[in-house]
Amino acid sequence: MTLPVVPPLDRAAEPALRALIDAKAKPLGALGRIETLAIQLALIAGRPDPTADRAQLLVFAGDHGLTEAGVSSYPQAVTLAMVATLLAGKASANAFARAVGAKVMVVDAGVAADILSHPDLIEAKVRAGTRNGALEPALTLEEVRLALSRGAAIAAAAAEEADVLLLGEMGIGNSASAALILHRLGPAPLAECVGLGAGHDEAGLARKRAALDQAAARSSADQPMEVLAQFGGLEIAMMAGAVIGAAAARRPVVVDGFICGAAALAAIRLQPAVRDYCVFAHRSAERGHALMLQVLGAEPLLDLDLRLGEGTGGLLALPLLRAACALLSDLASLEDVLAGRL
Amino acid sequence: MTLPVVPPLDRAAEPALRALIDAKAKPLGALGRIETLAIQLALIAGRPDPTADRAQLLVFAGDHGLTEAGVSSYPQAVTLAMVATLLAGKASANAFARAVGAKVMVVDAGVAADILSHPDLIEAKVRAGTRNGALEPALTLEEVRLALSRGAAIAAAAAEEADVLLLGEMGIGNSASAALILHRLGPAPLAECVGLGAGHDEAGLARKRAALDQAAARSSADQPMEVLAQFGGLEIAMMAGAVIGAAAARRPVVVDGFICGAAALAAIRLQPAVRDYCVFAHRSAERGHALMLQVLGAEPLLDLDLRLGEGTGGLLALPLLRAACALLSDLASLEDVLAGRL
Repeated sequence: MTLPVVPPLDRAAEPALRALIDAKAKPLGALGRIETLAIQLALIAGRPDPTADRAQLLVFAGDHGLTEAGVSSYPQAVTLAMVATLLAGKASANAFARAVGAKVMVVDAGVAADILSHPDLIEAKVRAGTRNGALEPALTLEEVRLALSRGAAIAAAAAEEADVLLLGEMGIGNSASAALILHRLGPAPLAECVGLGAGHDEAGLARKRAALDQAAARSSADQPMEVLAQFGGLEIAMMAGAVIGAAAARRPVVVDGFICGAAALAAIRLQPAVRDYCVFAHRSAERGHALMLQVLGAEPLLDLDLRLGEGTGGLLALPLLRAACALLSDLASLEDVLAGRL
Repeated sequence: MTLPVVPPLDRAAEPALRALIDAKAKPLGALGRIETLAIQLALIAGRPDPTADRAQLLVFAGDHGLTEAGVSSYPQAVTLAMVATLLAGKASANAFARAVGAKVMVVDAGVAADILSHPDLIEAKVRAGTRNGALEPALTLEEVRLALSRGAAIAAAAAEEADVLLLGEMGIGNSASAALILHRLGPAPLAECVGLGAGHDEAGLARKRAALDQAAARSSADQPMEVLAQFGGLEIAMMAGAVIGAAAARRPVVVDGFICGAAALAAIRLQPAVRDYCVFAHRSAERGHALMLQVLGAEPLLDLDLRLGEGTGGLLALPLLRAACALLSDLASLEDVLAGRL
């Protein structure tokens, strides 16, 4: 399979949508960012009454050879343990998904262990974890291509039954890959891209920095496919494909935090048109995320000091998308109010 | 009826709640402000598994004699028209309430017109609009007392069938009253408290400023009851009572924007203990709101450039309360994950 090509969003309907919103029974512009979001969702759907009722969170999981270099404070086995927790419906993302009304699917993009079949598991493993990017390329270009195209296909299938796709991830060590991606595709100084991830003491952070310096010194890659190959990870590459697949299916794709943001950045560098289909959910507490959002020209919806991943921030933003749809479809016009037609 | 007296929140359980959250299957502190919110909700409910499923928005409506002085860009009749729109289920608050799952009730605190009975209308009119606060006291102390006690009773009744109460308001001219309340109870320089409200051109804003200068020059009131009497409005006083009633019933009360914030400020000056029961939903685009939040020592959950009122911002924050409850009740412990007990 090759990647679909996403056409730029047709903005011809924007003035009409703005006029529709301005005619609603409320002061001009009084719903602020919800109004902007409503216009984006309507343009993506190609209709003035988009919906966001059916939402599906895809949690892409993968392991990272970089963990051998000590980039994470957690052992690699935690990826598998958290995949099991997600499939058991007991992780943060499940709890939040139930709270807001969204379906959760887990994608095995490259977990370094076998996962038992499960109705909520999509098996798409490209390989059992990446190679150690500090020492060698984490992936081959062929593996990156496979991850991208599987991600696009997964998003296309999800779009059949969902109005909105949300991206989430689980992968011990993946904030290290994301930092390298931001460093090269931002581009941005590596030191400003590296943060605490799931949690580090000073020694741990120094170890992470040293491993990333080593990885960065090994390759001068600065093009998206090659950067993904050099630094991983499989879940990030597959999410980049999912961004493209969602946009091709004309679905808004809610981008969670730092790791998902790295995937969106790679997708946007591959196909700039997908930028318009992305809804950036929140500003993470992870160092580097504010910078990443700046690079992407994105002002996220939420700023709640989150740094968990799994798509938790995206799930918290989902009700805002639904409110934006309700603004378009479910609100009287000022004219009707003044004429007493209610 | 007299106002209930709210005891300070018992914080004895806070360390145990923090430990409970820290034992969940996630990095320490990774859910940021949702964790803080979860602790607040658990302390309010007095149990480690609070719920926010049943939510009721009370939209308090009232008119303002100050509109005679040209403080609003909309005519007074819009209050009644928007009350009708709210009762018809076609206002922004109704649309958002359906999107997030909340019940909407409208309270006639002091609309300057008769409103036909409706199952979603609570009739609590103290008088048909306030007097013109630029020229004379907007209310008598007795009218303020009545508004406060009716607000507390309405909240107590709502608490019987709701886990969370949300405050909203509709009242042409009420950002003028709110500015005067912030000015005196903050206290804060009047000029910094006055904003565009629902929308003003330069001449309109100058008119609003002149009327508020005139009102402020008329009285040096700086105590909550007297400030409410001098400057109104009825919906604000009744919301202040509702904050106290909600806290007395141990329900979190979600405070929307600038006008609701003024009511919360008055309630807190009357009974400082109610502060702990307030969840500040968002930072409004209305000038003065950032200052008000600072005075209240509040960091709101959302910042979406909203300035509509009706409780719209509170409704958008509601899913965050539900996520906070889910974090406490619906998430595996790290110990269970590591032991494979899922």
